[in-house]
Amino acid sequence: MPTRRAGRVNEQMLFNLVDLAGTFAFAISGATAARRSNLDLFGILAIAFITACGGGIVRDLCIGAIPPAGLSDWRYLFTAVVAALLTIVAYPWVERLTYPVRLFDAMGLGLFAVYGAHKALLYGNNAEVAILLGVVTAVGGGMARDVLLARVSIVLEREIYASAALIGAALTVLGEYLDWPAVWATWLPIVVCFGLRFLSLHLHWNLPRFGRRDSH
Amino acid sequence: MPTRRAGRVNEQMLFNLVDLAGTFAFAISGATAARRSNLDLFGILAIAFITACGGGIVRDLCIGAIPPAGLSDWRYLFTAVVAALLTIVAYPWVERLTYPVRLFDAMGLGLFAVYGAHKALLYGNNAEVAILLGVVTAVGGGMARDVLLARVSIVLEREIYASAALIGAALTVLGEYLDWPAVWATWLPIVVCFGLRFLSLHLHWNLPRFGRRDSH
Amino acid sequence: MPTRRAGRVNEQMLFNLVDLAGTFAFAISGATAARRSNLDLFGILAIAFITACGGGIVRDLCIGAIPPAGLSDWRYLFTAVVAALLTIVAYPWVERLTYPVRLFDAMGLGLFAVYGAHKALLYGNNAEVAILLGVVTAVGGGMARDVLLARVSIVLEREIYASAALIGAALTVLGEYLDWPAVWATWLPIVVCFGLRFLSLHLHWNLPRFGRRDSH
Repeated sequence: MPTRRAGRVNEQMLFNLVDLAGTFAFAISGATAARRSNLDLFGILAIAFITACGGGIVRDLCIGAIPPAGLSDWRYLFTAVVAALLTIVAYPWVERLTYPVRLFDAMGLGLFAVYGAHKALLYGNNAEVAILLGVVTAVGGGMARDVLLARVSIVLEREIYASAALIGAALTVLGEYLDWPAVWATWLPIVVCFGLRFLSLHLHWNLPRFGRRDSH
Repeated sequence: MPTRRAGRVNEQMLFNLVDLAGTFAFAISGATAARRSNLDLFGILAIAFITACGGGIVRDLCIGAIPPAGLSDWRYLFTAVVAALLTIVAYPWVERLTYPVRLFDAMGLGLFAVYGAHKALLYGNNAEVAILLGVVTAVGGGMARDVLLARVSIVLEREIYASAALIGAALTVLGEYLDWPAVWATWLPIVVCFGLRFLSLHLHWNLPRFGRRDSH
Repeated sequence: MPTRRAGRVNEQMLFNLVDLAGTFAFAISGATAARRSNLDLFGILAIAFITACGGGIVRDLCIGAIPPAGLSDWRYLFTAVVAALLTIVAYPWVERLTYPVRLFDAMGLGLFAVYGAHKALLYGNNAEVAILLGVVTAVGGGMARDVLLARVSIVLEREIYASAALIGAALTVLGEYLDWPAVWATWLPIVVCFGLRFLSLHLHWNLPRFGRRDSH
């Protein structure tokens, strides 16, 4: 079924690398949250895997990529398990440094938004599907993590987060439509999404809220 | 794959209208709940979209309609965004008037139960699939909304709600099996489902519970 | 699409029996939890059905078995409804006896882990997909139940639970790869998974945790 740009081997390798890097980044963020909720070893591994692969699995179901790569390709499971075990071993260190965790999470956001939009286009979908599924890939795993830990998803509450993924995914689609060179089409959206998220964290940018002042 | 009744253009237009009206109704109900939970602009748009399209996306995955119409057809996204923005702008007015919100929600319930059952039949499924997916279409978005806002789904607790959707979906299937005229087969189940929900709200009808008296 | 071992009628009947027995077991566990949360009649039926069939529906979506058997095969719905009604009628009796409920849940765990892995292989998937989807089949419904009741999933917190399903699913895959006789390949993993879960309940085995002592 993949029709667009099939055979461009180098580009595909680049995207695979992007995807695995995102998996690693999100698995650390998932394992950290699960560890904080005092889950057992299996719970930490499961939440790390779901955070890392949940968004991509939903994307694959929506584009008909059966079975989802997150389930059938051992590299995802392997990457998530390694990241989770590293988090457990290095936890006292990870906990003190919330900074690197957020950095990893912001990287995962950019990497997944771009890879998700790219894969949806590769399967012949239109721009809207690609942008929406780029966002789903980027924030779906984190939403599943928060739902399973029974808390309001910080994805929906935090500083610019899903909106950064939206911009990253939209830039990816724009790049593919305008046929930008692969390196640009891949890295520019990743850097923009990561940069937006990173700056919003540091400068406490927020999207407008409309509630009473005292609510938060 | 759609085999039943393909080509009956007018009927299809009627069902599309029903589906978009349901989208609008549920998006308002979702945006109102998100606004009350003090989510930011993107969170409100996301919850409105998920409430409006979540049930239909799950239905489409279950019948193999890939990609789901909620993702690929811009009219759903557009309708949900317009409804959400209207809700934000008119919020002081919407909040005082919980009545119209519930009215919209009851309308969405009927419209989606009927459209969901209809689409499942159109894809060649049996009566059981059509009825269950009618209910999923009608209540799935609301359940996703409540799960994301980390509260016990009112879908499961409230006065006659999902059971009204069940009756609407079952009537739709009956109508298609008995080959009722399209207008009847469409509007009768919508009106019955809406009416049941509406009356149960006003008259505080409830399904039996079996718990201790003091629990609620 | 089913390619492996098609036509072995007796074996298929055995697996179907296993699947329905798991459905019955999990529906009781779901109905009991819903009853405790004071849901109404429809809510209890819905949670029983989702607990019993939710994992299998996700598995079927992931392997492309459309529509999912949990929706299209009346025996699942019928079994779940009967189990839920029995639970309601016999509730005073069920509540005093948490023991049989846990016993049923442990049985469902083993039965579903094995059936899920088996069905994934039958659809031509690799060992990783089969093992992961065996676990999803076994614990997915329970996770959905807990998410809908807005509590941290006990699946992730409890004594050896999902890890028992993992071992059951892995043994199933091993048995099919080594071509064990059907009765062994079916019952050995079920008994091992059930036994692990059962012993962990009685002997309070737990996987390691890494949190502060006071947290639980």
